[in-house]
Amino acid sequence: MPVYLVGAGPGDPELLTLRGAALLGRAEVVVHDRLIARQLLALAPDGAELVDVGKIPGQPGRQDDINRLLVDHGRAGRSVVRLKGGDPFVFGRGGEEAEALLAAGVPFEVVPGVTSATAAPAAAGIPVTHRGVSTSFTVVTGRVGDPSAAGGVDWGAMARVGGTLVVLMGMSERARIAEALQAAGRPPDTPVAVVHWGTTDHQQVVRTSLAELADVDLPTPSTIVIGAVAGFDVGPGSPAG
Amino acid sequence: MPVYLVGAGPGDPELLTLRGAALLGRAEVVVHDRLIARQLLALAPDGAELVDVGKIPGQPGRQDDINRLLVDHGRAGRSVVRLKGGDPFVFGRGGEEAEALLAAGVPFEVVPGVTSATAAPAAAGIPVTHRGVSTSFTVVTGRVGDPSAAGGVDWGAMARVGGTLVVLMGMSERARIAEALQAAGRPPDTPVAVVHWGTTDHQQVVRTSLAELADVDLPTPSTIVIGAVAGFDVGPGSPAG
Repeated sequence: MPVYLVGAGPGDPELLTLRGAALLGRAEVVVHDRLIARQLLALAPDGAELVDVGKIPGQPGRQDDINRLLVDHGRAGRSVVRLKGGDPFVFGRGGEEAEALLAAGVPFEVVPGVTSATAAPAAAGIPVTHRGVSTSFTVVTGRVGDPSAAGGVDWGAMARVGGTLVVLMGMSERARIAEALQAAGRPPDTPVAVVHWGTTDHQQVVRTSLAELADVDLPTPSTIVIGAVAGFDVGPGSPAG
Repeated sequence: MPVYLVGAGPGDPELLTLRGAALLGRAEVVVHDRLIARQLLALAPDGAELVDVGKIPGQPGRQDDINRLLVDHGRAGRSVVRLKGGDPFVFGRGGEEAEALLAAGVPFEVVPGVTSATAAPAAAGIPVTHRGVSTSFTVVTGRVGDPSAAGGVDWGAMARVGGTLVVLMGMSERARIAEALQAAGRPPDTPVAVVHWGTTDHQQVVRTSLAELADVDLPTPSTIVIGAVAGFDVGPGSPAG
């Protein structure tokens, strides 16, 4: 079983799974995203090859290179951990890596991780669901273009679902998202929380409203939580706290 | 920090977080759900008190008892792990437990876990998002009543969002859900996968369509995945495999 697609969790290194830690501990090659904590990479054995394939936004061709790298190392029989932020199958393009490995006949395993879609809100004291307040949550990426295109996001429909909306990688599009949701009927005073570097020592939380989301200026990585629960602050929250 | 609300993960004991394992390893009291793996409870020290508060569906009053138990143990200064299936803040009523602890002035911490909403599909080879196929996923519980009630689910709006729909605890309502989604425009041949005991050695997967979901007969706990990605099977998937 040479290639493991492993979810590194939301940021706090202690939120890696036992399985992920065990696999890292005997990896020969670790192919990792840019924002992976150093403490996680330190779990790999001395002499393991660490490859940073952190993608620069707007360089879509890189994914093919990553797929090829995994296939090549896998074919060479090396024990490879592909360490991905959050969960490999939640906006991680892990599905494409799995398809490439499958097509190449390289055995692999997917090891789920804690996604920042739920953990970043939790670290800010926000449950994405709460009895009598929100009975669903929708996770979407802000990095999409035309809603009419395949795989595009229909923000109007998102607005009408009504539950909690969690937007990953959405800061650059926050003004457009806030506008679209209000145009589709979400009230301007809908609570919003922006969680920067959720679960880590660098965590910052800004509470605002849909009307004022555009004014929040926090860099990547930030998770945007929209809906009544975003006004909650139940507890200390942060595992790092 | 006497009370820890810890996500136990989706079923496979190896999908517990490092933080969760460390806390379990020094717990004095473990207050756990019914479906928690024995291997996880075995991580608690000899002599730790294990309390099974597994709720029988339809006994809503039990939650108050659980809240009181956590507050009482916390006030007594014991190190308490409240071990909850999946993630504590994803349909786990962890938000209510946090509120009760907050109101009682008992210090606590939330430790996120891997939710079965993403891990059960992954274990069946299904990425909840996939480039060009699904750019969002919505997680909802099937155990809700009237959609017009506070916190109810509007299945029509769910249908129109278009991304992947993951229904937890939805098997008893599967016929009604399938009907509502089709009535709102989801085609009868929309791929559906039902994942029973996802990520564990007992995992079973049934692939079907929205039109035939009602015929699937798998018991609790099962995760229903609805949408194009439910037709995917990228790889071995199961961490237990």
